[in-house]
Amino acid sequence: MPQVDVCLSPALLHLYDTRDKDVVIIDVFRATSTIAAALHNGAIEIIPVAAVETAIRLGETIPESITAGERDGRIAPGLAHGNSPSEYPADFIAGKTLILTTTNGTKLLHMVQDAHTILTGAFLNISAVVAYLLQSNRDVVLGCAAWKDKFNLEDTLFAGEVARRLLQNGYKTNDDSTRCAVQMATTVQGNYLHFLKDSSHYKRLSAYGLEADMAYCATPDLHPIVPVLRGQSLVIA
Amino acid sequence: MPQVDVCLSPALLHLYDTRDKDVVIIDVFRATSTIAAALHNGAIEIIPVAAVETAIRLGETIPESITAGERDGRIAPGLAHGNSPSEYPADFIAGKTLILTTTNGTKLLHMVQDAHTILTGAFLNISAVVAYLLQSNRDVVLGCAAWKDKFNLEDTLFAGEVARRLLQNGYKTNDDSTRCAVQMATTVQGNYLHFLKDSSHYKRLSAYGLEADMAYCATPDLHPIVPVLRGQSLVIA
Repeated sequence: MPQVDVCLSPALLHLYDTRDKDVVIIDVFRATSTIAAALHNGAIEIIPVAAVETAIRLGETIPESITAGERDGRIAPGLAHGNSPSEYPADFIAGKTLILTTTNGTKLLHMVQDAHTILTGAFLNISAVVAYLLQSNRDVVLGCAAWKDKFNLEDTLFAGEVARRLLQNGYKTNDDSTRCAVQMATTVQGNYLHFLKDSSHYKRLSAYGLEADMAYCATPDLHPIVPVLRGQSLVIA
Repeated sequence: MPQVDVCLSPALLHLYDTRDKDVVIIDVFRATSTIAAALHNGAIEIIPVAAVETAIRLGETIPESITAGERDGRIAPGLAHGNSPSEYPADFIAGKTLILTTTNGTKLLHMVQDAHTILTGAFLNISAVVAYLLQSNRDVVLGCAAWKDKFNLEDTLFAGEVARRLLQNGYKTNDDSTRCAVQMATTVQGNYLHFLKDSSHYKRLSAYGLEADMAYCATPDLHPIVPVLRGQSLVIA
């Protein structure tokens, strides 16, 4: 049976073998939640980039494109939109290219070079991601974007819930991070938002008035699609 | 009130400020368990060193010294003893200097440079360590030695139990690693050995026949002393 491992931080990624595996990039608050929402609402593709300057430059050359990204909770200067999934309803994003720069998720996504498939996951598309992984039947690395390399609860909880479902379907692990994340998910029993209210990221984003955003991001399966990386773009699998 | 943070791996230590704090080095299986046992059983001091060669050289120059260390579960060539706490009863170690090299604990110990006090902790001396920290009343970093930088359950569980007790005494945290470790300790409810049997390190050491060692290391408060680093040596506080 395939194996599942959880990588708790980009700073630990070198300890994991990602070659020919399915790698799920996880940035629940809020990059991979926004990616799920925008693609489900009709975006043609999402181009994740590391730097604000790159986003601006691409936005100038790609027709029907939207540039988006925040730094410290505000839309970054030179970009048009923010990181909230609520900013991308169908009547705005359908048929467009979203060029997205984020602090943590983008970095991890670009660090993985040798995977079979790179996909992104969040509670908004958790069941679709699990179904994709089971269908693929490969070894899986669940990569938490974390916060500037620091462990965070929301990405770990999501990874634990995905790993729990894979283990229930016969996947194996011999990775203590995975055991820890699964124990967390088992204890939380689906009360994601309640649990995450006592987390660093919830407190940080609450200070920007983003409680509704986080409640949305903690809701399972509102956007049941699977974003995969093809070339430089995330598209629906 | 003071703050408590848990650092899950030496590879994440750069994310934590250790200056003027009490830093607890944790390597439950088995370096910091052996340190607690040997000092409680009468060792004058323990000199932790990174390299086998250094241990051999120091052993030749320090009278009444014992060299110890393992690599891959066996006594390293050139050293006299292993990493098991059971190897250091009073009638053997009393009055002697133990020169100890280990894979993970020693490395982390030498990485922390600016702490107020560096101490070592394990279940064997957990209550003594907590009492020392409460008396000191400083900010605390609980540093897990991990396994070649990879997160492990036994060090995280110990850190979670210490953090849980400090938080009960009014300490604060805004660190998700700490919340995760505390949740783990709260769920485990003192059944340390049972929980740790499903861990990477337990499985690895079981293959060397070291189950009794690990049961011993999971027993609280058999060696109620606090090892602190003074110069290059660990001595009883």
